[in-house]
Amino acid sequence: MRILFIGDVVGSPGREMVRDYLPRLKQKFQPHVSIVNGENAAAGKGITEKIYKQFLESGAQAVTLGNHAWDKKEIFEFIDEAEYMVRPANFPEGTPGREIVYVRSNKAEVAVINLQGRTFLPPLDDPFRKADQLIAEAKKRTNLIFVDFHAEATSEKQAMGWYLDGKVSAVVGTHTHTQTADERILPKGTGYITDAGMTGPYDGILGTDKEAVLNRFLTNLPVRFEVTKTGRTQLNGFIVDIDESTGFARKVERILINDDHPFFG
Amino acid sequence: MRILFIGDVVGSPGREMVRDYLPRLKQKFQPHVSIVNGENAAAGKGITEKIYKQFLESGAQAVTLGNHAWDKKEIFEFIDEAEYMVRPANFPEGTPGREIVYVRSNKAEVAVINLQGRTFLPPLDDPFRKADQLIAEAKKRTNLIFVDFHAEATSEKQAMGWYLDGKVSAVVGTHTHTQTADERILPKGTGYITDAGMTGPYDGILGTDKEAVLNRFLTNLPVRFEVTKTGRTQLNGFIVDIDESTGFARKVERILINDDHPFFG
Amino acid sequence: MRILFIGDVVGSPGREMVRDYLPRLKQKFQPHVSIVNGENAAAGKGITEKIYKQFLESGAQAVTLGNHAWDKKEIFEFIDEAEYMVRPANFPEGTPGREIVYVRSNKAEVAVINLQGRTFLPPLDDPFRKADQLIAEAKKRTNLIFVDFHAEATSEKQAMGWYLDGKVSAVVGTHTHTQTADERILPKGTGYITDAGMTGPYDGILGTDKEAVLNRFLTNLPVRFEVTKTGRTQLNGFIVDIDESTGFARKVERILINDDHPFFG
Amino acid sequence: MRILFIGDVVGSPGREMVRDYLPRLKQKFQPHVSIVNGENAAAGKGITEKIYKQFLESGAQAVTLGNHAWDKKEIFEFIDEAEYMVRPANFPEGTPGREIVYVRSNKAEVAVINLQGRTFLPPLDDPFRKADQLIAEAKKRTNLIFVDFHAEATSEKQAMGWYLDGKVSAVVGTHTHTQTADERILPKGTGYITDAGMTGPYDGILGTDKEAVLNRFLTNLPVRFEVTKTGRTQLNGFIVDIDESTGFARKVERILINDDHPFFG
Ligand SMILES: [Fe+2]
Ligand SMILES: [Fe+2]
Ligand SMILES: [Fe+2]
Ligand SMILES: [Fe+2]
Ligand SMILES: [Fe+2]
Ligand SMILES: [Fe+2]
Ligand SMILES: [Fe+2]
Ligand SMILES: [Fe+2]
Repeated sequence: MRILFIGDVVGSPGREMVRDYLPRLKQKFQPHVSIVNGENAAAGKGITEKIYKQFLESGAQAVTLGNHAWDKKEIFEFIDEAEYMVRPANFPEGTPGREIVYVRSNKAEVAVINLQGRTFLPPLDDPFRKADQLIAEAKKRTNLIFVDFHAEATSEKQAMGWYLDGKVSAVVGTHTHTQTADERILPKGTGYITDAGMTGPYDGILGTDKEAVLNRFLTNLPVRFEVTKTGRTQLNGFIVDIDESTGFARKVERILINDDHPFFG
Repeated sequence: MRILFIGDVVGSPGREMVRDYLPRLKQKFQPHVSIVNGENAAAGKGITEKIYKQFLESGAQAVTLGNHAWDKKEIFEFIDEAEYMVRPANFPEGTPGREIVYVRSNKAEVAVINLQGRTFLPPLDDPFRKADQLIAEAKKRTNLIFVDFHAEATSEKQAMGWYLDGKVSAVVGTHTHTQTADERILPKGTGYITDAGMTGPYDGILGTDKEAVLNRFLTNLPVRFEVTKTGRTQLNGFIVDIDESTGFARKVERILINDDHPFFG
Repeated sequence: MRILFIGDVVGSPGREMVRDYLPRLKQKFQPHVSIVNGENAAAGKGITEKIYKQFLESGAQAVTLGNHAWDKKEIFEFIDEAEYMVRPANFPEGTPGREIVYVRSNKAEVAVINLQGRTFLPPLDDPFRKADQLIAEAKKRTNLIFVDFHAEATSEKQAMGWYLDGKVSAVVGTHTHTQTADERILPKGTGYITDAGMTGPYDGILGTDKEAVLNRFLTNLPVRFEVTKTGRTQLNGFIVDIDESTGFARKVERILINDDHPFFG
Repeated sequence: MRILFIGDVVGSPGREMVRDYLPRLKQKFQPHVSIVNGENAAAGKGITEKIYKQFLESGAQAVTLGNHAWDKKEIFEFIDEAEYMVRPANFPEGTPGREIVYVRSNKAEVAVINLQGRTFLPPLDDPFRKADQLIAEAKKRTNLIFVDFHAEATSEKQAMGWYLDGKVSAVVGTHTHTQTADERILPKGTGYITDAGMTGPYDGILGTDKEAVLNRFLTNLPVRFEVTKTGRTQLNGFIVDIDESTGFARKVERILINDDHPFFG
């Protein structure tokens, strides 16, 4: 079972990269399941129903989210119907949306879980205990479990990796919009990367117009952030190859497509 | 002019990696200047005079620091004499230690600057304005300028990269102890990476004993953090090749040495 | 039913104020129950068994805590035996110590609850939901419920006041070591103050030696904080008078004893 | 020389309180100078030129600001012309607006300074060093210096009070929207209060609709904050009486006007 994950898709440049490259990546890597983090897909902030459906049409089987999930109010109108969208599960009980999404491929069923960190981010329920609870639930159906841990601090993300080592197939970090080079298979079999990176503008700052972000750091005045709409783009992702009999990773691989790392199909 | 940089060296496992691999890396890459970030070199917190001197003996020409610089009180006794140690320059006026260190190789002179970010870190003077000031000063002597930007947030680090693009030879991030995969040469010629990573234990969390860190996340109680003393180790670094005539980067390369990425001399 | 509460007792100067003034305050106000926040009682950080027992001997019937509860390791050895000590209840399940303490006076039984805020403080379980759970439990025994909400942000504290208005007898804030002037009875009957203040040195900064704290703000270097041992002292507290038939507050009053507000017995 | 200060005015309920009570307060206390913090005057966020002028018409001689200064974009169009409006001086060099405002009464001239804290707030220049610089400048004209220190943490505010004790006439905290009960004259003569409190709704949370704020704490979802437009209101302030010959405080007094503390003219 091979799973392809695409890191935080930012705005229309990110969506276009998914539309253009997801088919080529599927061609090349033949993943059984493809997952996209969509928390920044709508102009950098949140996601709309239309974009969610575009992701499915582009070939994704599941969409994960993060702290920006709720930025477009429209989400509250469609999240409960969006069968393949999973939101950070450690929001308080009663939060709309799914805590686990099950994706069926011809090979087997994968449970997709999304959790949000608390270091340098707003307080939520404990993501470690929530992970335990969801994994127990998922294990009733499958031992193929994919976790997108949306968090800021490298310590919290690595802690989650080690905590879930031997319990899930993969822990993939998102949120910093910067791919890390530490992909590995942890000693008990879980595929891991601190951050899968982002998909969208290549010459912005985390996908946002760099002049605006710089202006913010230099002036500390309010600045309107916009996704860089023109210019070069990138796609960042991660592939994990899982042994279906054990549920553990056999191989992990980073994906980086940009002008400095062109795609070879 | 080739500069080799080694990311945050953590405790004795990190120091041993420097001692063992810095000579081999010099053999292989033939850098003219080697720089080590030593803020965690003494048991994960701070640095001592003895360790500083060991780094020079191991072949480093300069040692940079960060938020942990001051953890060992001994620093205040030797920092002003440590000719090749540079501390984050945007601490308030009057802080002991050097704001620029100049390293001479047979090729030319390199100015080494260390700055500390403010996002998710204590308030200091503005690192962007401080950078401008120090670069103006350094340019009187050399156009080979190497900046270690010690910061947490990917946004602040990329902002610094873009801010200094075309003004310095390289901006290398440190502090998150996790190497990023986004090394590149920015459009105006500055070599860049969001984080060079760490050097020390390979199976800890940022170099710290993983059980302790996990315990902290799970209990929120005080936990004593210790560097993982036994087990596998890693070295993370970065190389930038600079055109001496322009002061700009010709090539950048990540260095990653661990069990999953063995060193080939 | 009258309850006297004494705000964060800091070090030996604070303990001496409790020893000297608690009897006089009892003489003057005739409270049925006296409660002391002891999180800083041991040299500003944590509490020991000896100090806990001194508080009971000085006339307190219950001791509340806060984020500094765990600073002296000794706490883990006696907290489970300390029948009248209550720790922030929204630490994760399995944390040692009591989540509710019941104090019996000749009048009636009071449930004492301690919760910790999450804004500008480490992530814990949701204090609002935890309050609901504990109040439901306490209500089985008594409708006299006293809550010490240990939190930094005025917004979170006032939110808790309004959230519990009509559900408990009093919500008293602690942690900022600065008494607020906003004591009131909320519309549905709950006595409230954003912060009861601190008990200890009068000429320090939150009880800590002011030169050290200033030094920290001016240098951003590590500074050793000590409780100001000599000089003038203060006691800050709060009294709530409760109608036992309803469990709601009839009267609230701030207590402030220092050189500018001398005590009149 | 008597100075009346009115704490953070929130939205139209706050502006109406200023309009109604400032004349009565002037009648009662006969201040020579009246100052209003206006950072939340426009619907809770920022200030407009019209509101600034209303404050002057209501009888204020100066308007101070804070972190919300810039929320209404209109500020950038009139701040440089607003002769009696002073913004936090420790924003970076080049920020629009005044760093000191001098107000002349028949008695003498008062320098009004506004600074912003950095603990739990965005990084700015060092407010302590900036204070030194502005005080040196102001002293060339007057020894009557009034400082509004807009900050979150009680430690930072008290540190500023002690730092400026003996250097200025008064240090008055703002920003937490909750009046503290610690008004005093520090040993070297500076009038001090950690927070003067807020002016506006009495039954909201810091002036904001309490249902919305509670909703935010309970759900961690985005919530639209609005100023409570109807219902009871309050005015919080502070008076300092200064000896013109020395520039030091002779007397300080809190002002609290609400249903629980009615105004007596
Ligand atoms: Fe994102
Ligand atoms: Fe995010
Ligand atoms: Fe480090
Ligand atoms: Fe660091
Ligand atoms: Fe305390
Ligand atoms: Fe506390
Ligand atoms: Fe305000
Ligand atoms: Fe404010």
